[in-house]
Amino acid sequence: MDSIRNRRTIRKYKQQDIPAELLNGLLEEAFRASTMGNMQLYSVVVTRDAERKALLAPAHFNQPMVTSAPVVLTFCADFNRFSKWCRQRKAEPGYDNLISFINAASDTLLAVQNFCTLAEDRGLGICYLGTTVYNPDQIIDILHLPELVVPVATITVGYPDECPAQPDRLPLSGIIHEEEYHDYTPEAIDAIYAMKESLPENKHFVEINHTETLAQIFTNIRYKKSDNEFMSEGLKRTLKRQGFDK
Amino acid sequence: MDSIRNRRTIRKYKQQDIPAELLNGLLEEAFRASTMGNMQLYSVVVTRDAERKALLAPAHFNQPMVTSAPVVLTFCADFNRFSKWCRQRKAEPGYDNLISFINAASDTLLAVQNFCTLAEDRGLGICYLGTTVYNPDQIIDILHLPELVVPVATITVGYPDECPAQPDRLPLSGIIHEEEYHDYTPEAIDAIYAMKESLPENKHFVEINHTETLAQIFTNIRYKKSDNEFMSEGLKRTLKRQGFDK
Repeated sequence: MDSIRNRRTIRKYKQQDIPAELLNGLLEEAFRASTMGNMQLYSVVVTRDAERKALLAPAHFNQPMVTSAPVVLTFCADFNRFSKWCRQRKAEPGYDNLISFINAASDTLLAVQNFCTLAEDRGLGICYLGTTVYNPDQIIDILHLPELVVPVATITVGYPDECPAQPDRLPLSGIIHEEEYHDYTPEAIDAIYAMKESLPENKHFVEINHTETLAQIFTNIRYKKSDNEFMSEGLKRTLKRQGFDK
Repeated sequence: MDSIRNRRTIRKYKQQDIPAELLNGLLEEAFRASTMGNMQLYSVVVTRDAERKALLAPAHFNQPMVTSAPVVLTFCADFNRFSKWCRQRKAEPGYDNLISFINAASDTLLAVQNFCTLAEDRGLGICYLGTTVYNPDQIIDILHLPELVVPVATITVGYPDECPAQPDRLPLSGIIHEEEYHDYTPEAIDAIYAMKESLPENKHFVEINHTETLAQIFTNIRYKKSDNEFMSEGLKRTLKRQGFDK
């Protein structure tokens, strides 16, 4: 599993298409991931068309990967297909609620990660776009997603045209808890984040952003409270619009 | 990636411990998965103690894997650690909202699937317990999860003591959509679910459950509307209690 150990996010891709058989084969294997009651509560929209990518780009804050990658995959939580099957089989579906969205989103994200692992093992590079849940309504309109379908992750895929440094990770001891959650003392927090804070690139970030600490880049610039609250309200509206909050 | 292609859920385990180094090594590699802004918004509680497993079992409807597996892993969406770091660094965190829960849950589920892939590749067997989000409050109490920490997935792990048949999957064409979502016609639904409906084990399920169709087993017995609505209300209360709906 060297491809997992050595993985890095790829944002620059070669001008080289991904054959449909390769992509479909990877997706088919990815769907072997665990799924709630074997319901497979997801759909994947495959975007190769340049015009469609250009439409999607603003929903992802115009990150260049959306238009430069040969393939953009939008993974959607999907209770539409299953509910339609139920109705055709004299069964009344009851999946227009929050827990069903969470179940479908969980199924979807397991399949997403499985796909990424398989793609990277085959020499492809991927970038996970967390922006998908920030502007779901735009994506819903562009991809014509019906009720009970909500986009939860977008993956850009292509042959790597860069090999960036591997990003840091927190020490394992800062993430696992034996038997029960041991809440973090101030000293533990210092120790867990020390390496991250000491990295030259992070010190550089602090300098060019004119903040006092690295944490302030997250709270004041990248992931602000006001933005989070705005997007939370948007997501609630989307869940209602798509029928997951009846 | 044969381990992905050939995977099956394992519910029976040998009486054989998983060495801590092996488990920790797998978790460390799993945390190489994509993570929102490299925040690593998750924690993992490792349960080996038999008494603690017995406490957790009812939260998972007493599925026997919880007490019979050598290791039970509870993967939690965690904005507590990050928020504590922010506060210690003169940064005011703004992560007490729905989008932050979704971001943290997404991070968590990618790490979960990465862990499962790695564990299976090393000959371990896993079972994904979707029940985690059904009774989060019980789990929160048992594992002492603080504010901004919510369990989203539980994985039981051990050396396989069974080799069940591989479950069916829907045909790929029923899941992927080229360029935009093509909603399902009644004929498409029939075709997509035909194989599943024709399986002897599913016909047997219908017979012993005295339902008319396979879909009715899902809507009337396994995933009922009334249960989903009850659990949705519970999950909303949990998100409020844990500070993700301020």
